[in-house]
Amino acid sequence: MSLLADLLTTVFERRYAGASSADPRPVDELVRALMDARDEMTVMEIARLVLDRYSSMDDAARHRFFEFITDEMDIDTEAVRTALTAFESDRGAPNYSALVAAAEPPRQEFARRLNQVPGATAQLVRMRGDLLRLMRQHPELARLDVDLRHLLRSWFNRGFLVLRPIDWESPANVLQKIIAYEAVHAIDSWEDLRLRLEPSDRRCFAFFHPAMPDDPLIFVEVALTRGIPGAIDKVLAEERTPLRPEEADTAVFYSISNCQPGLTGISFGNSLIKQVVADLAAKWPQLRTFVTLSPIPGLAAWMAEREIDAPKGTSDDTAALQRIAARYLMDMKDGRLRDPVARFHLGNGAEIHEIHINADPSPTGRTQSHGVMVNYLYDPARIARNLEGFVAGKPAASRRVQTLARQADKKEPK
Amino acid sequence: MSLLADLLTTVFERRYAGASSADPRPVDELVRALMDARDEMTVMEIARLVLDRYSSMDDAARHRFFEFITDEMDIDTEAVRTALTAFESDRGAPNYSALVAAAEPPRQEFARRLNQVPGATAQLVRMRGDLLRLMRQHPELARLDVDLRHLLRSWFNRGFLVLRPIDWESPANVLQKIIAYEAVHAIDSWEDLRLRLEPSDRRCFAFFHPAMPDDPLIFVEVALTRGIPGAIDKVLAEERTPLRPEEADTAVFYSISNCQPGLTGISFGNSLIKQVVADLAAKWPQLRTFVTLSPIPGLAAWMAEREIDAPKGTSDDTAALQRIAARYLMDMKDGRLRDPVARFHLGNGAEIHEIHINADPSPTGRTQSHGVMVNYLYDPARIARNLEGFVAGKPAASRRVQTLARQADKKEPK
Amino acid sequence: MSLLADLLTTVFERRYAGASSADPRPVDELVRALMDARDEMTVMEIARLVLDRYSSMDDAARHRFFEFITDEMDIDTEAVRTALTAFESDRGAPNYSALVAAAEPPRQEFARRLNQVPGATAQLVRMRGDLLRLMRQHPELARLDVDLRHLLRSWFNRGFLVLRPIDWESPANVLQKIIAYEAVHAIDSWEDLRLRLEPSDRRCFAFFHPAMPDDPLIFVEVALTRGIPGAIDKVLAEERTPLRPEEADTAVFYSISNCQPGLTGISFGNSLIKQVVADLAAKWPQLRTFVTLSPIPGLAAWMAEREIDAPKGTSDDTAALQRIAARYLMDMKDGRLRDPVARFHLGNGAEIHEIHINADPSPTGRTQSHGVMVNYLYDPARIARNLEGFVAGKPAASRRVQTLARQADKKEPK
Amino acid sequence: MSLLADLLTTVFERRYAGASSADPRPVDELVRALMDARDEMTVMEIARLVLDRYSSMDDAARHRFFEFITDEMDIDTEAVRTALTAFESDRGAPNYSALVAAAEPPRQEFARRLNQVPGATAQLVRMRGDLLRLMRQHPELARLDVDLRHLLRSWFNRGFLVLRPIDWESPANVLQKIIAYEAVHAIDSWEDLRLRLEPSDRRCFAFFHPAMPDDPLIFVEVALTRGIPGAIDKVLAEERTPLRPEEADTAVFYSISNCQPGLTGISFGNSLIKQVVADLAAKWPQLRTFVTLSPIPGLAAWMAEREIDAPKGTSDDTAALQRIAARYLMDMKDGRLRDPVARFHLGNGAEIHEIHINADPSPTGRTQSHGVMVNYLYDPARIARNLEGFVAGKPAASRRVQTLARQADKKEPK
Repeated sequence: MSLLADLLTTVFERRYAGASSADPRPVDELVRALMDARDEMTVMEIARLVLDRYSSMDDAARHRFFEFITDEMDIDTEAVRTALTAFESDRGAPNYSALVAAAEPPRQEFARRLNQVPGATAQLVRMRGDLLRLMRQHPELARLDVDLRHLLRSWFNRGFLVLRPIDWESPANVLQKIIAYEAVHAIDSWEDLRLRLEPSDRRCFAFFHPAMPDDPLIFVEVALTRGIPGAIDKVLAEERTPLRPEEADTAVFYSISNCQPGLTGISFGNSLIKQVVADLAAKWPQLRTFVTLSPIPGLAAWMAEREIDAPKGTSDDTAALQRIAARYLMDMKDGRLRDPVARFHLGNGAEIHEIHINADPSPTGRTQSHGVMVNYLYDPARIARNLEGFVAGKPAASRRVQTLARQADKKEPK
Repeated sequence: MSLLADLLTTVFERRYAGASSADPRPVDELVRALMDARDEMTVMEIARLVLDRYSSMDDAARHRFFEFITDEMDIDTEAVRTALTAFESDRGAPNYSALVAAAEPPRQEFARRLNQVPGATAQLVRMRGDLLRLMRQHPELARLDVDLRHLLRSWFNRGFLVLRPIDWESPANVLQKIIAYEAVHAIDSWEDLRLRLEPSDRRCFAFFHPAMPDDPLIFVEVALTRGIPGAIDKVLAEERTPLRPEEADTAVFYSISNCQPGLTGISFGNSLIKQVVADLAAKWPQLRTFVTLSPIPGLAAWMAEREIDAPKGTSDDTAALQRIAARYLMDMKDGRLRDPVARFHLGNGAEIHEIHINADPSPTGRTQSHGVMVNYLYDPARIARNLEGFVAGKPAASRRVQTLARQADKKEPK
Repeated sequence: MSLLADLLTTVFERRYAGASSADPRPVDELVRALMDARDEMTVMEIARLVLDRYSSMDDAARHRFFEFITDEMDIDTEAVRTALTAFESDRGAPNYSALVAAAEPPRQEFARRLNQVPGATAQLVRMRGDLLRLMRQHPELARLDVDLRHLLRSWFNRGFLVLRPIDWESPANVLQKIIAYEAVHAIDSWEDLRLRLEPSDRRCFAFFHPAMPDDPLIFVEVALTRGIPGAIDKVLAEERTPLRPEEADTAVFYSISNCQPGLTGISFGNSLIKQVVADLAAKWPQLRTFVTLSPIPGLAAWMAEREIDAPKGTSDDTAALQRIAARYLMDMKDGRLRDPVARFHLGNGAEIHEIHINADPSPTGRTQSHGVMVNYLYDPARIARNLEGFVAGKPAASRRVQTLARQADKKEPK
Repeated sequence: MSLLADLLTTVFERRYAGASSADPRPVDELVRALMDARDEMTVMEIARLVLDRYSSMDDAARHRFFEFITDEMDIDTEAVRTALTAFESDRGAPNYSALVAAAEPPRQEFARRLNQVPGATAQLVRMRGDLLRLMRQHPELARLDVDLRHLLRSWFNRGFLVLRPIDWESPANVLQKIIAYEAVHAIDSWEDLRLRLEPSDRRCFAFFHPAMPDDPLIFVEVALTRGIPGAIDKVLAEERTPLRPEEADTAVFYSISNCQPGLTGISFGNSLIKQVVADLAAKWPQLRTFVTLSPIPGLAAWMAEREIDAPKGTSDDTAALQRIAARYLMDMKDGRLRDPVARFHLGNGAEIHEIHINADPSPTGRTQSHGVMVNYLYDPARIARNLEGFVAGKPAASRRVQTLARQADKKEPK
């Protein structure tokens, strides 16, 4: 219970950390003291100080802090070379251990020591978020990021993640974050959120890490439908009569959003979708189709590059736009698909299933893809084969979409 | 709820892992397939296979498995050397990243991939337990242990651990493990356990890792008393009138037990004791003294080495035995305390407080220390100073114990 | 987990209640069948049908339903008289049992049978809410209310209620109800709600019944402050630097709201306040003062009745308004205090502590009390004495308020 | 968390109930003070005193206490008669309310007031347990029991009960009660308990009341099997290879035990069995048969009465014993079945399915039924029809059992 936790933390802090919040040492010295500390309680105390100090820094100070860590705690190449030579001459455990120790930059131990403070994991994730932001101007900090990403990838291993349903009974502080992080179809208000969580034919799931129980890492919003929907405004419509889940035959993943900028490059989406497919299939065996309704973020730009005008809306034109979109979605450059969303889903083993025009009338939808959207199909029985094709450079698509793409090649030659 | 979890796992397994439990490939091939797999679902599937296969192996097969991992997934020293040279000429992030990658043995990625299976963490801990056992005959496996320990130390970082009270309302499957793992004063039966958990003046706390919610890592048993007890049989007596906690002025840590042989070398005891001190002090501010009642495992052997007979029981003799024990407890060899329990507590910042003869009448107590026990005192205000002394080779002790030790030097010169 | 509950309920319904939702019988017949049913499963089935049927009724149909229950299930006075005579001649248990059975109207058994359906308790509470509403036009339904109130009072006995903190981690579906039911100072938005729940110096507590875990019965909002605040707009101000709870010396109960119209006449407020006082005092022993900041709903009307104008704002006038308010708050009619809020708090053992002008600038505050508010003080040491006085017709008040009231008597003689 | 609850209760008690545990008033006076108290806090204080006082009473004192309650708080028949006459002349709500009030004995309000203390519900249940025990010698206390049973029946309404699985992860303090209350096949040890809870083909479920979360009301033990077992020792065998639940086609209810003597006469078994049938059927749709394996407690006595010797063990004889058992199970006296277990299950809508000799080799089994056991079958599709027959005096049985019973009539004519 949080009341008790408060109470304990408070007393604990009074006893052990008492005078320290006013510790006069500069942060560099604190960092060095942290690395030198032997006793676990001292480690925790100083780690807390460093984290508190960091919280109150502005960007300039954070930049200096990152620079200090990057420079001060680098790998000692001489030491690695020496350990390497020793290990080559005798591959016993002591030499091995020495080599591993020499080859690990002290920055990792630094991060592990910070993480001894309860609640520090979330702060380390935010710290990496800051780092990624500052790296745009200061690319020399990239070495530090190599280490942080490595450590976070290990700590956020799939085996540690917990899948939790998000619904209208979830804690408000978690829901607040769902509103804040929804990246695909913005949630305007709590009422808007309620419409995505409470109806009997809507579901939402998120991955959590046990050390950050209030912070979703990634979440997916699901609509249970009869048949595959071809337009997002129907999915999000306020005035609907919800289906009973037993009546649905299709689960539509209509939005997937990452929540933690500080975990960029550590991918959870593949696992999340497949776990949710498995869970939904277990609960409602009558669900036959698992499909996304996805944006095509790069379509309009790709067309503009090629000076292809957006068709105007006659039925001929709409067919033309479908063909163009099919062509774009399967387009590869340097061996990889151009569209990032296609890349994600086909990289997971999904296939391009169907293309819908006039599917996203929102300003964003109009601007990025002339309102076109796409369904990616997750068919457990075909995932392995799709993936093989994907790795071999042959993106998987339904016959219909393949035909559309071929027609595009004929009709819109470049 | 576990019913649902069962249900989901079941369906999930049917869908994805269907035929695989009868996969005919030898385990080496599975391991290679695991390392080659791109798709997360495939990784999970093969990882599960490898873990299942491992579970059913006998020791000989496990030895071969460990050998295979150790040999097959070693560091490529040539690659490290090349990456090192490149990094020295250009310390940019790409070279750095390449160096870090080359210097990390593939065994770590192997373990991380195994850990993607829900529940795998506990299996990896057991696997390291097996490894440590087999290493006694096969020291060449020690390199593998270097990597496993490194990874487990990172995963079992203090920041991820959860302190939970263990009481008579705890789940039976957890309590069963408390009975099994109690290492200091054996618990004979569930009734015996109840007597250590249910009375109002008894407490027990354990650290847990979120990925192993049913498996305590370490636990400590506490008695709330008036004054410092000098004999364990009084603490464990069945016929007592329990104190109300508000009446106690002392918390006695009378047993600390590690539960996971597979986490040997990853220490939790220091944190556990200090966290429990903080929590108890928060809950009952009238508690003034935090003290252990500890065995002295090496005393009898040390006396035998020196041909010191155990005194016979006259009051003179009992004083003599106290002096000998004081002398032994502060005895150092090669710069470290001889007694492992003393080393642990003094290394945490505690001090030797008092020595009691006829304190442990159990056969173990008689055999290892002629029935002598010792209190180590944890005084938050003196921990830092005690630790400095400890590092400087001056073990902390109360005046009385110091005097006893000095008298021993005079009376039992070597 | 609600997923599992759904699943079970669904199957359960398919098996047992299959065709019944289309049961063609009129509700009167269903009610009779419910009373006749012997098997518990049949009782549950029919009860569910009756509740479903009731849900879909309009007010006219509900009125007929209540009339039917009231007429059909009345006490049989002849049977009571017979049983009474038999009991008077032989006061043995069989006659006693027969008398008790005869004297209990079948309506109570009817409500108990409806309540066998999981979730029915909340529906019965709503049903009584409807009844109270319809009784305004149809006073002949009052007999039915006598029975429902009696049963609900027994079921919502204090011993069954659970006090739970409401905070920003509470489920959204519960918070939604806090917004809806706040009766004293309206909550405009989720952001407004957050400002009352999340800051470190704000608390909220509610009573729940285990059979209605998502429906608060009553809740109280608390501000932790230094000193007693004299104006609600300061308490509710958005731009505040929150206190740490350890810094507060006062807990201010600034809003108490009942949530269930169907529980009118079953009082929870007294218990709630005293339980919260006890809990806060336990958690933060430095809290010395427990006080409300309350509206004075009847002041303006009382002044209008007496043709007393609201003073205009000079300092003399403000003193005058305080005196008038003091006079009003202690004014009794037919042996009871006129002001309902005063009646509630003084009936709980509180005392009138201080009167503040310009304390509630909201339109409601202006209209009902010319902006005046009052603190009622809960002093555990004086509650018993205050209550004695209250019962004896002497409302408890601080000296200052007593003086103000006396001055009013001199200055505004009637 | 119980730590916090302790803390709060402690402080609360210090503040409010301070000196009261030494209250010198005799219990009669306390009871009267309880009934007179106006303030809820005072009610709680005195109620706690009365309950504490009761706990420390011996049987003689409890008898006097019950006598006092029975005599002092009886119905005032004159008041009832007056209210009845008034109501007959004007059936308005005020008269109705007065009648209801007059006809309810003050004992009920007394029990409701006691129940305001947290935790009091369990004490009231124990109090009725004492009453039932003392009533054997003191039948004049039966009037009090009429009231307590009435109130408890209302409070333990099916809608308030919660079904919880009992497994090896359940709290030890609950499991301890399962061991204590198992009434059919004794549980010898915690290890024995584990064998009934932990294997994958064993289940246990209990009803709980929210106000008694640690006290099961009734529980049922279930074995998942292939086919219907004909002997209890096979079900309880220690050396079994457990089935996976998916492989089972039958759920066997092999033990049902009531836990609360104080709830005698308030039946939960019917609901429990049917709820568990529904839940198991939802979770494992392949389960086709829901059946008990039940003792026949009255068989041996019934045979002795009729001077029928137990057959000796030849195959002819075993057939004879089956016939006798069938005959007995369907035997009625004064319109009801003789065997109490048969009465219970057939009264729930089950049917006698099969009779097994040599099915219970335990001493109890030998003594009460010459080792014979019986399966009662719960077939959701036939429950309604079976019940109609049961009410009409025609107990439901399989053809085979009907034939056996008919053969018995021919062969063992009386």
